[in-house]
Amino acid sequence: MEFVVRQIGIIHSPFRTKEEAPVQGALSPEAEGTVEVFADYAMALKDIETFTHLYLLYRFDRAGEIILARPTFLDDAPHGVFASRHPCRPNGIGLSVVRLIRRDENNLLVGGIDVLDGTPLLDIKPYIPRFDCRPEAGEGWLAGLKSRPKPPGRE
Amino acid sequence: MEFVVRQIGIIHSPFRTKEEAPVQGALSPEAEGTVEVFADYAMALKDIETFTHLYLLYRFDRAGEIILARPTFLDDAPHGVFASRHPCRPNGIGLSVVRLIRRDENNLLVGGIDVLDGTPLLDIKPYIPRFDCRPEAGEGWLAGLKSRPKPPGRE
Repeated sequence: MEFVVRQIGIIHSPFRTKEEAPVQGALSPEAEGTVEVFADYAMALKDIETFTHLYLLYRFDRAGEIILARPTFLDDAPHGVFASRHPCRPNGIGLSVVRLIRRDENNLLVGGIDVLDGTPLLDIKPYIPRFDCRPEAGEGWLAGLKSRPKPPGRE
Repeated sequence: MEFVVRQIGIIHSPFRTKEEAPVQGALSPEAEGTVEVFADYAMALKDIETFTHLYLLYRFDRAGEIILARPTFLDDAPHGVFASRHPCRPNGIGLSVVRLIRRDENNLLVGGIDVLDGTPLLDIKPYIPRFDCRPEAGEGWLAGLKSRPKPPGRE
């Protein structure tokens, strides 16, 4: 089974390069960006301003080669790409949680952004804590690992 | 910008019809299913068993017509599809948080499943609470709405 996915908007952010982008948006809550939804889809935004947090689905359009298990930003040991948030993955779809600061027609000002400037937007879903917040979840292999400077050349 | 997305596995669940499936997995924590990852991608699962919760990305392969704003299970008033989790949406990609109960090679037994049996799997990402748990998030237009029986004919 395969199907075609089409861009529905564009994400504008302060991050021009992989080196500049944070590992995850939760680690850079002050970073602001704009999610521009193409005018054809404006009606799909009705009532989005009632939410405080959103999921963004987007295309990792500058990802490199797909290797199924590899080291990550946070750990030098290799982990499977389905056990990490690494951008070089089958289907190349990214997922981020952002804060919705303000809606201005079909532009959404968001905080805690972690994606590269110009990233193609694929979908927006409301973050609904009764469905999506799981404080009981474990940290997996990330347990005890602290944020660190990105190792050079690593995605 | 457009690209082709390919199935990387299949989700087996107890739900054969839209009428049987719960509104969200968090509302049916006892429902168990199996995420079968195709053998070609088995290496991408390395260390996934260290996590307790996972995101599943999948294709809404039985969704009907895309209407950009429409009523939902939980509310009769129309809301934009980007302000709801409605399956009939541009690009037709679904997102669920599930509990990982056990890994058996390339099969993952999961709890809190809410997708239809036979749904094509597109990606798995670990749910990492420091990135993904946002207890401060608001409920948006869902605030105060309680779960209710699904209105007939509604997706």
